[in-house]
Amino acid sequence: MKKQTRRNFLTATGILGGGLAASAMPLGKKQNKKQVIHHVFFWLKNPNSKEDLAKLLAGLQTLKKIETVRAIHIGVTAKTEERSVVDATFSASELLFFDDLAGQKTYQDHPIHLEFIKNCSSLWEKVIVYDSVDI
Amino acid sequence: MKKQTRRNFLTATGILGGGLAASAMPLGKKQNKKQVIHHVFFWLKNPNSKEDLAKLLAGLQTLKKIETVRAIHIGVTAKTEERSVVDATFSASELLFFDDLAGQKTYQDHPIHLEFIKNCSSLWEKVIVYDSVDI
Repeated sequence: MKKQTRRNFLTATGILGGGLAASAMPLGKKQNKKQVIHHVFFWLKNPNSKEDLAKLLAGLQTLKKIETVRAIHIGVTAKTEERSVVDATFSASELLFFDDLAGQKTYQDHPIHLEFIKNCSSLWEKVIVYDSVDI
Repeated sequence: MKKQTRRNFLTATGILGGGLAASAMPLGKKQNKKQVIHHVFFWLKNPNSKEDLAKLLAGLQTLKKIETVRAIHIGVTAKTEERSVVDATFSASELLFFDDLAGQKTYQDHPIHLEFIKNCSSLWEKVIVYDSVDI
């Protein structure tokens, strides 16, 4: 079935009329609106402590409950090639997608986020945040 | 139709057997495999040059053609709140998703990527790359 025909079929049958519709497009083609992308990198005070890393990652998991978070990726350093431009010294990363600046602000001030900072900020010695918006 | 039933139906009818399958879930819930996330931040030599920024962004657009790039977000600095942890000094960012480390390596060595570096590297004075992998 050709792509367009298939989509028409899906729409006609109502398959794309429900919850699937909003998520049927891959990331980056998902919607036309300019998403705000919030990427935070954490450097632990004890980078070799598996326990501290686990605590931080568990804390980061709580952030997905914040209602304006559209998507979340929690990660650790990937073992890609060592190159001078690659900073592989961080311990964990948190990548969040928001619909807009207001969504990001709601997240910043949200009790769940503040609770995360209260519980986990003693674990890290450095944080860098990069906020970008889709062109 | 319940979610599971719908999925069974879609699978049975072959609707999820094609290209739609891989993109039917929203970002972050897209699949269980651990994606490699490659985030690059660029600082232009002439940060106030709209022309240089446009050239860089146009160059970044070419990267989406690389076959192992599963998703791409090209962005500029978002106007979020000024905070000490936020680095808002970069000019542009490139966020790429790969299925695995091999996909990222294919991208690194790909002629389109090398052509991008050749054409655009004179524009930037600094690049930082962060590679993370989903936990």
